[in-house]
Amino acid sequence: MKHSIRIVLVGTTHPGNIGAAARAMKTMQLSELYLVAPRSFPDAEATSRASGADDLLARAVVCDSLDEALQGCGYIAGTSARLRSLEWPMTRPRECAKKLVAEASNARVALVFGQEKAGLSNQELDRCNVLVNIPCNPEYSSLNLAMAVQLMAYEIMLARGEFADLPERDDVPASADEMANFYAHLEQVLLEKGFLDPHNPRHLMRRLRRLFNRSELDQNEVNILRGILAAVQNPKRRASETGQRKEQ
Amino acid sequence: MKHSIRIVLVGTTHPGNIGAAARAMKTMQLSELYLVAPRSFPDAEATSRASGADDLLARAVVCDSLDEALQGCGYIAGTSARLRSLEWPMTRPRECAKKLVAEASNARVALVFGQEKAGLSNQELDRCNVLVNIPCNPEYSSLNLAMAVQLMAYEIMLARGEFADLPERDDVPASADEMANFYAHLEQVLLEKGFLDPHNPRHLMRRLRRLFNRSELDQNEVNILRGILAAVQNPKRRASETGQRKEQ
Repeated sequence: MKHSIRIVLVGTTHPGNIGAAARAMKTMQLSELYLVAPRSFPDAEATSRASGADDLLARAVVCDSLDEALQGCGYIAGTSARLRSLEWPMTRPRECAKKLVAEASNARVALVFGQEKAGLSNQELDRCNVLVNIPCNPEYSSLNLAMAVQLMAYEIMLARGEFADLPERDDVPASADEMANFYAHLEQVLLEKGFLDPHNPRHLMRRLRRLFNRSELDQNEVNILRGILAAVQNPKRRASETGQRKEQ
Repeated sequence: MKHSIRIVLVGTTHPGNIGAAARAMKTMQLSELYLVAPRSFPDAEATSRASGADDLLARAVVCDSLDEALQGCGYIAGTSARLRSLEWPMTRPRECAKKLVAEASNARVALVFGQEKAGLSNQELDRCNVLVNIPCNPEYSSLNLAMAVQLMAYEIMLARGEFADLPERDDVPASADEMANFYAHLEQVLLEKGFLDPHNPRHLMRRLRRLFNRSELDQNEVNILRGILAAVQNPKRRASETGQRKEQ
């Protein structure tokens, strides 16, 4: 059975961050929000920033203590902005997200975020199996709380792999012989127009091949280009007779 | 020469998003912000949300058109929330960030974000070499603009690899013979206390070995555990004589 991944926000000061965190979670298909002693919740600012993720706020569980919010959780990761001196096991977002997703196949898991300024206290960190540190500019590590939730939620979504594939290219790549015919046609036109000197061809055709091969032309594009070449050879020919209008 | 990666925000409606985007950029060591026809800039809300990244706002370049903002850029990626039907080359954030970082060794590069609701227009997309799509919940893809900047900036930082390593473990792992002595001691205590039945040991010692081996104990921890075992064997012994106080 697959369990959900619980997001726990501890002692959040700004209700806007709770709303923005809910929105961030929902964009990445997380839905289980626990709030430990938020300064103000429910709050109009939270609802406003949630922007359509207010269903997560409505279902959010408000707790008095972190222990209460972690009940039943078998694996717990805590976020830490500092690289602590005590050697608690530390990890990075990508690795942590993979671990959370893997553990969630066995048990409830939780990802804990501390108060905006102070982060998690040592006592709260002691509840965690691992600490995750989001890499940041060492001279400006002021990552907003909801931004941190967004980054972790994004990594969890990637780790789950549950998102649509990019659309596949549905055009037909030009075949090798179509490309060969195109290059022959192009060379012919360049010769006719005097741009390519047969006695001193230099690397012109190779450069043009490099360009068009890199572009991975499809059949339609080759037809357009050949239509242009034909029109250049015979300007009086009507556009409708070239491949262009038909193919576009 | 390594060039910076320019972040271009087109037609931003909410000045708060400009500030939050600047903050997001700075946390990930990006500094070059271009604004195309923002609805309101400079703006107190932008400054407030920038929260210490106001130097980026002060240096931000405001342009009338996207063409102006892209001047001199040799590689341009545009963000797209939709998976478009026209087959413009599309990519994912991780891949896109690697490409931007690689291209930035040759030329100025830009990453373009459209207006909050509408995104980039087709005319604006036509300026791009590639479109990047951030994977999202298909039923709620309402990713905030500044959040999208944060995610891309994070991927760019990872692609650059310019962030501090996690601190190395500076404790000394327990050696094989220290572990063997510990297990012998543990087994002895369990026999003495009658918890381990020598005639029916089952898998008790194997289970305990699995637990402690998985924990990758360090020398200090083994000393603590052996101190506890000794105290269990001889409760009258003072704590100061065990390894505990000394080692902790």
